[in-house]
Amino acid sequence: MKNITVAVAQMGPIQKAETREQVVKRMIKLMDDAKQCGADLIVYPELTLTTFFPRYFMEDQAEIDSWFESEMPNAATIPLFTKAKFYGMAITFGYAELTSDGKHFNTSIFVDKSGSITGKYRKVHLPGHSEYDSNRDFQHLEKRYFQPGDLGFPVYRTLGGIFGMCICNDRRWPETYRVMGLKGVEMITLGYNTPSFNSQKSAEGSEDRLFHNRLVQQAGAYQNSTWVVGVAKAGIEDGHPLIGGSLIIDPGGKIVAEAKTEEDELIVHTCDLDSCIFGKTTVFDFSRHRRIEDYSIITSQTGVVVPKEKDGS
Amino acid sequence: MKNITVAVAQMGPIQKAETREQVVKRMIKLMDDAKQCGADLIVYPELTLTTFFPRYFMEDQAEIDSWFESEMPNAATIPLFTKAKFYGMAITFGYAELTSDGKHFNTSIFVDKSGSITGKYRKVHLPGHSEYDSNRDFQHLEKRYFQPGDLGFPVYRTLGGIFGMCICNDRRWPETYRVMGLKGVEMITLGYNTPSFNSQKSAEGSEDRLFHNRLVQQAGAYQNSTWVVGVAKAGIEDGHPLIGGSLIIDPGGKIVAEAKTEEDELIVHTCDLDSCIFGKTTVFDFSRHRRIEDYSIITSQTGVVVPKEKDGS
Repeated sequence: MKNITVAVAQMGPIQKAETREQVVKRMIKLMDDAKQCGADLIVYPELTLTTFFPRYFMEDQAEIDSWFESEMPNAATIPLFTKAKFYGMAITFGYAELTSDGKHFNTSIFVDKSGSITGKYRKVHLPGHSEYDSNRDFQHLEKRYFQPGDLGFPVYRTLGGIFGMCICNDRRWPETYRVMGLKGVEMITLGYNTPSFNSQKSAEGSEDRLFHNRLVQQAGAYQNSTWVVGVAKAGIEDGHPLIGGSLIIDPGGKIVAEAKTEEDELIVHTCDLDSCIFGKTTVFDFSRHRRIEDYSIITSQTGVVVPKEKDGS
Repeated sequence: MKNITVAVAQMGPIQKAETREQVVKRMIKLMDDAKQCGADLIVYPELTLTTFFPRYFMEDQAEIDSWFESEMPNAATIPLFTKAKFYGMAITFGYAELTSDGKHFNTSIFVDKSGSITGKYRKVHLPGHSEYDSNRDFQHLEKRYFQPGDLGFPVYRTLGGIFGMCICNDRRWPETYRVMGLKGVEMITLGYNTPSFNSQKSAEGSEDRLFHNRLVQQAGAYQNSTWVVGVAKAGIEDGHPLIGGSLIIDPGGKIVAEAKTEEDELIVHTCDLDSCIFGKTTVFDFSRHRRIEDYSIITSQTGVVVPKEKDGS
């Protein structure tokens, strides 16, 4: 048994005018509750510190940069680091990162119980588009404001296990989980801001969106025999609804805890990292069963190449 | 609209003493019913023609080879081909293939409406083990009797669309779907013989097995925006129960039809291949969103390599 008590800190909506300081207060309130539950780790969502700003089309770089953090911790977030260290609790959360050489990333960090940043991840699969798109019901401009992550999908030894991170749209891609699975990951944490409607197909509403949210994370967990912890920023931001459905999934792909609201809400579960072993040594013992000679186009070919007419492929 | 009416022909148990001729009669009965439903395509399971023989440990090569087909069609199966051509119905089914140069594969073929074999697939991900394993509740000797498929994951233009196949354990591997997804697949058909209990963990029973069966196929469908059609050989063979749960999944990952029994049972659905387009051109538009530079270990590394102690990776 290698037990880790994980608190998933779903955040309700954050309005445009809310400050980082106000958000950090809400985060600390959830952390206080997590401490009462004996949490070793608290997991906050993608871009935790502000509203989901990629829904706004902006052209002024100073305005864009106002959503980014150029230091971490910084004045607004240091209380979070201080309290977590005081509690002896590891934390992970997402924020918009502006590097000293002017690069913009959608980032998450993992801070261990001693307050050290032991993991950093920058979102690889940026969804949406880079220019204003009048054919959409609303904008999703991540490809405008961020560049693709340049750290790959690292994993880290921390809390006695092997941890990895991804962010939001990354969770829809089986490659995300597989790369970390090949590094022996035992728990993947991820945050998301997922609109309750598909901007290009309004008939795809929250029920479908929650279904896909569960499906991809459950499959990623099962197929790599790893815990997966997904946490939402939820509720209605500036008229734009986001799904909740934060959840904890065991290495067999089963949901063991799931949020019920679209507000700030804590769900807690004690996860035995050793329960990853069975799958990793039997049906998903990669060394015995994977056939990489048949996978080559997965890494040699980005897009689709259809077979010629009247031809196989 | 590019409609294909698909009949999924779940087969109930086939006992050891049943002959190919008896099985083909059952297959034709299902084909007759499929014709009444206007089917363009009928899909039969893995190793349709016999009991699931890899549960038996055999050492005598002649005994082993007695489960294999060295020609296709052959005397036992020609009535199937003849009837399908008469009906103008495409068919796909699995069988144990012995090649003229002595190779053994777990194979499935796709026969078009004119009776021509337009597609062949040989199972890549062989589960189980190659020697008698006294630690298992029962044997699963696919690695003993078959060699891994040597055809990759081909797709074929047929019935006005792009079709691919895989077999049983292949469906648990996201790479299977992705390789075909990268070739624009619109419908993947697959058969399975899945024991109702995990041979290495009897607490994992039919409910869990059916859950995993759905999960991996639904994820594969959604993540590649393709139809997935899975068909079981089901019921109790020689005291060994196999799950049913044959199903048809749409490109959004939703189950649109599912078998209710563990017997010979037909489920039918008209599938619009054009419903693949939305996913393939938006969230899963691979050319815009995949990041192959971050996937390299998926094809360069077969097994797990864990990070060193006190180190990232």
